[in-house]
Amino acid sequence: MDSTEKLLGKTLAEKLTMESQVSDLKSSSSSSVTDKSSLDEEVFRKNLVNMLTSAKNMFYVPSFKIYNSGVSGLYDYAPPGCALKSNVLALWRQHFVLEENMLEVDCPCITPEVVLQASGHVDKFTDLMVKDEKAGTFHRADHLLKDFCTEKLQKELTALSAEKVQELKHVLAMVADFSPEQLGSKIKEYGVVAPVTKNPVSDPYPFNLMFQTSIGPSGAVLGYMRPETAQGIFVNFKDSYYYNGSKLPFAAAQIGQAFRNEISPRQGLFRVREFTLAEIEHFVDPEDKYHPRLSEVEDLEFLMFPREEQGPGKDAVKLRLGDAVTNGTVNNQTLAYFIGRNVCGSVSILEMRWHIMQHAEIQCSYGWTECVGIADRSAYDLRAHSEKSGIPLVAHEKFSAPREVEKLVIIPVKEELGLAFKGNQKKIVEALEAMDEKEAMEVKAALELHGEVEFQVCTLGKAVTIKPSMVSISKEIKKEYQRVFTPSVIEPSFGIGRIIYCLFEHSFYTRPEDEKLNVFRFPPVVAPIKCTVFPLVQDKKDNKYDAVAKEISKSLTAAGVSNKLDTTGTTIGKRYARTDELGVPFAITVDDDTTTVTIRERDSRDQIRVEINKVVRLVQDLTNGVRTWANIQSEYPCVPFKKMNDLP
Amino acid sequence: MDSTEKLLGKTLAEKLTMESQVSDLKSSSSSSVTDKSSLDEEVFRKNLVNMLTSAKNMFYVPSFKIYNSGVSGLYDYAPPGCALKSNVLALWRQHFVLEENMLEVDCPCITPEVVLQASGHVDKFTDLMVKDEKAGTFHRADHLLKDFCTEKLQKELTALSAEKVQELKHVLAMVADFSPEQLGSKIKEYGVVAPVTKNPVSDPYPFNLMFQTSIGPSGAVLGYMRPETAQGIFVNFKDSYYYNGSKLPFAAAQIGQAFRNEISPRQGLFRVREFTLAEIEHFVDPEDKYHPRLSEVEDLEFLMFPREEQGPGKDAVKLRLGDAVTNGTVNNQTLAYFIGRNVCGSVSILEMRWHIMQHAEIQCSYGWTECVGIADRSAYDLRAHSEKSGIPLVAHEKFSAPREVEKLVIIPVKEELGLAFKGNQKKIVEALEAMDEKEAMEVKAALELHGEVEFQVCTLGKAVTIKPSMVSISKEIKKEYQRVFTPSVIEPSFGIGRIIYCLFEHSFYTRPEDEKLNVFRFPPVVAPIKCTVFPLVQDKKDNKYDAVAKEISKSLTAAGVSNKLDTTGTTIGKRYARTDELGVPFAITVDDDTTTVTIRERDSRDQIRVEINKVVRLVQDLTNGVRTWANIQSEYPCVPFKKMNDLP
Repeated sequence: MDSTEKLLGKTLAEKLTMESQVSDLKSSSSSSVTDKSSLDEEVFRKNLVNMLTSAKNMFYVPSFKIYNSGVSGLYDYAPPGCALKSNVLALWRQHFVLEENMLEVDCPCITPEVVLQASGHVDKFTDLMVKDEKAGTFHRADHLLKDFCTEKLQKELTALSAEKVQELKHVLAMVADFSPEQLGSKIKEYGVVAPVTKNPVSDPYPFNLMFQTSIGPSGAVLGYMRPETAQGIFVNFKDSYYYNGSKLPFAAAQIGQAFRNEISPRQGLFRVREFTLAEIEHFVDPEDKYHPRLSEVEDLEFLMFPREEQGPGKDAVKLRLGDAVTNGTVNNQTLAYFIGRNVCGSVSILEMRWHIMQHAEIQCSYGWTECVGIADRSAYDLRAHSEKSGIPLVAHEKFSAPREVEKLVIIPVKEELGLAFKGNQKKIVEALEAMDEKEAMEVKAALELHGEVEFQVCTLGKAVTIKPSMVSISKEIKKEYQRVFTPSVIEPSFGIGRIIYCLFEHSFYTRPEDEKLNVFRFPPVVAPIKCTVFPLVQDKKDNKYDAVAKEISKSLTAAGVSNKLDTTGTTIGKRYARTDELGVPFAITVDDDTTTVTIRERDSRDQIRVEINKVVRLVQDLTNGVRTWANIQSEYPCVPFKKMNDLP
Repeated sequence: MDSTEKLLGKTLAEKLTMESQVSDLKSSSSSSVTDKSSLDEEVFRKNLVNMLTSAKNMFYVPSFKIYNSGVSGLYDYAPPGCALKSNVLALWRQHFVLEENMLEVDCPCITPEVVLQASGHVDKFTDLMVKDEKAGTFHRADHLLKDFCTEKLQKELTALSAEKVQELKHVLAMVADFSPEQLGSKIKEYGVVAPVTKNPVSDPYPFNLMFQTSIGPSGAVLGYMRPETAQGIFVNFKDSYYYNGSKLPFAAAQIGQAFRNEISPRQGLFRVREFTLAEIEHFVDPEDKYHPRLSEVEDLEFLMFPREEQGPGKDAVKLRLGDAVTNGTVNNQTLAYFIGRNVCGSVSILEMRWHIMQHAEIQCSYGWTECVGIADRSAYDLRAHSEKSGIPLVAHEKFSAPREVEKLVIIPVKEELGLAFKGNQKKIVEALEAMDEKEAMEVKAALELHGEVEFQVCTLGKAVTIKPSMVSISKEIKKEYQRVFTPSVIEPSFGIGRIIYCLFEHSFYTRPEDEKLNVFRFPPVVAPIKCTVFPLVQDKKDNKYDAVAKEISKSLTAAGVSNKLDTTGTTIGKRYARTDELGVPFAITVDDDTTTVTIRERDSRDQIRVEINKVVRLVQDLTNGVRTWANIQSEYPCVPFKKMNDLP
């Protein structure tokens, strides 16, 4: 068991929170965030969510809402949200699968029980739950305690003693790691009751978060909806390794649905019962976590501080990623590379406020929230599946020349053992053969020194006396042609729904001149609708502008650029207001110039004039990231604001 | 209830097989298929599947196979298969969502029971099952009977009487429509036994095909894994209609996983327990199934024949799609449009042998198999959800001027009814108000003729005597400002796994000169890997070719073109064999010409010479469908076969 596995092996819960081996890191970009009071944040969030889920905008909506069925934690991505999600996933696929040459796979959500028994989920993928016995409702025990402490600190701060404040803060910091007993005793001590009903609650007990079902007609084969996509990748390691030419390192990736039967989901898109994960399992030699492309990211700088120096009084140190690997702040090259890639990658492409703090967190109205985990899962999962299935999930390193290695050789002498121990012989033989090197050497030394040794046989439940004639223990030099080992796994894991929700919050603003004018400043590459096409409002009833606008819209569509043709004839101002609220980055207006049109950029509201036969290609380049607005502005004549300013 | 609903309302099973209103259509393209014996087909399929699922190729693999867990009907799309699938879905999204301006949504797989009670799935989404009582295994009753008849006809044909042959053929034609009793009696009559064990089987009984689970911690809220994606769209109709500006027609689309707990899955990717569906729900005014874009497809011609003329002796008639609508062979414009779009669309883009036969079928080694359904679901689902939820899922047609309509007015006289019937008054009032027009007019006539009428009140379980003083029934002229109606739904539904499997079969061939040289002729737009880049094998040890090849590969990746750089140094012949087997359409070879490279096309094996700085753009255009190989060949110098022919 290597050190990474020791850390992760302690509890599965720890592993599943995808805590990384990265010492705590914090990017400097977080300083740009202005503090708001939590009340402000709540009002902001409520307004934003209302806007996002309204029938007018439909970015996302609570699923099956006409049934008001009390089933929370399920959401639909409705038209603009679905397009945004699809664009984020395409970006992710380009950034990781294509550019990193990953092996993308697509495994089923339904997973037989045996797989999740091996991974530990059947036994340990639980949250601690309390029951409101009178109302028959359930709550997450840690959330209840956390809410109690937070409220106490907020509402009664002046009335509390300094010691009490200290204690409550300590509980808040530790609550995620509390045992059922610790949680239960604090709940009792503080008199924490159920929300709304104010009833007392039961002792905390574990609730498995997987959705269970049965597979096939007999009802006898249990299955679960996968709680992560990773296991589907692990069980295929043998084939994937062969497919990859039996070479390490390589990464497999998967985008798909995962399911967690949350006890009481809240926080909208942040805690849901079904969500899209994009996961990478990077398989690497545990003795050589070298990454061939580290040089591409090693000059990126972050504020980092080792875990032991964490705390309010400590200062972070700005470090080059390359140096952080050299001095051990980041454990290995592969971890460092993925930290760097994530930074260059999907999160920062979305231009969000984020930092790395064991996992990559993004700041939003819920506070700093984990959106990307970078976990070192070590050899845990591959070993677990090897043992359970009997199929070795291992890699091979062929030596260029055979190596001589010292091997422990234990040969029990069966006749002697049989004479001495009769029917127990077999169990004693097995116990002798199972000795590790240290134990075997101790037995050998004792036999040589005392002529016999008391040897504990667990399967017999007693010790037996072993004499030198009964076993031969020696070390021999053997030739080895290859090393066989279980690869380690580094797992960057992206919660797509959480990233999208943060994108909503970070992209939202209102025009300074009118707070009813809402805008989403989505980066063009992920914007749900890339471009609107308007014919200018005309007095005359001929539709020659309409025909040109339709032609442009059709060409944009053929080029794969999602667009909206608006020939409703409402004022340009109202049309802009509508498209700003959907976050459309560009608007093409057809006017009385027969060979050119204007393009307006959403945030600057600058406009340029472009020849009709070039406009489709230009918008395509602007929205797939080939060119930027700043980059093209100088090439095209700017349209004076006044001329186009026919806002009502 | 309109006629389409009557047809589909009969049994849910009928509706769920997505049988369309289209009279049977058959395209002429099916004639290109050569007949093979079913044994040949089985050998062909076995070899193909072995190749597809091998660790060398990994297009797809049985899920969780290291556990050999007996859980069949689940498959992983492994690297090339996953890329192919992702390309097919991107094509579908471009072809339908973008080009048809559809509202794409993404709903959860987990669905509360109430939703699937309303849709009828909880009661009726079943297959008939028999149990092998001794072995404890289960089989689909219709499959057992079908297999029995097929085998009898194949193996004992000469020994059977003409009547018996006729009877078995009749059973085969009708087995899908048999009731449990009909199936059971035929199984008994023929002595059909379980496969392998040859044990007798139980009477057929229905087995619900949905995977059941429970949502939330209480265990009290039942849910299912959705058996189709459509219901998530239907329950959101109210919001979607508003989002679409309260206008019809419009279409919503969804790509996602669906789940069916098949009794005994077989036929590989064809009958699986979890699969990807791409579904379109096109909402249309039932009184006006006009489609604005029919003109784009109306000149397409198909062989069609009305259902009543179906049979071995009947000839199909070649019809323009437009004429087929006019003469009623195809029910309405919207159905016709989607038939046309599918033809121009994803199925034919994949260049597959297909025809339309109530649904779109593709021919493969399993026979003609349904891959795309085009169903007229009428108002069934929206009405069901309106009733169950109490939320009207309706559309409005505002009249340009108010219309005068005759309305039935029923006014029970509560005092009189109260005096006569005391405590029963309320139920009688409700029953009177609930009368439909026909019943009300009969009551009115009877009251006028006889001065009283016996009126059945179901909620009382008896009839009461109603007198003229107790109720006023009349017809009045009222003004109406709009028509409120439940839209009809046309549903094209694509089974992505089936389409992909057919694509494998149709794309596979072996080189005429060597049957060990396997090739997949995937169309470039869906090919998993678009291009390979090879440096020519060199004697010298410098790697200048490698550097150029790497640079080209990197530029291809940046342009979003998936590619494989092969610097292994094996012979060009071996490299081509490997990439042909993965269906890579183009190969770039870097040789001693410093300014140009060659591109080889997979199927013709023709090669052209292209300038290095143009090659990335050219391959991009070739693989995203902007240009074709035939189209560019004349522009570039062809490379003589001999020169490059360094095959070993």
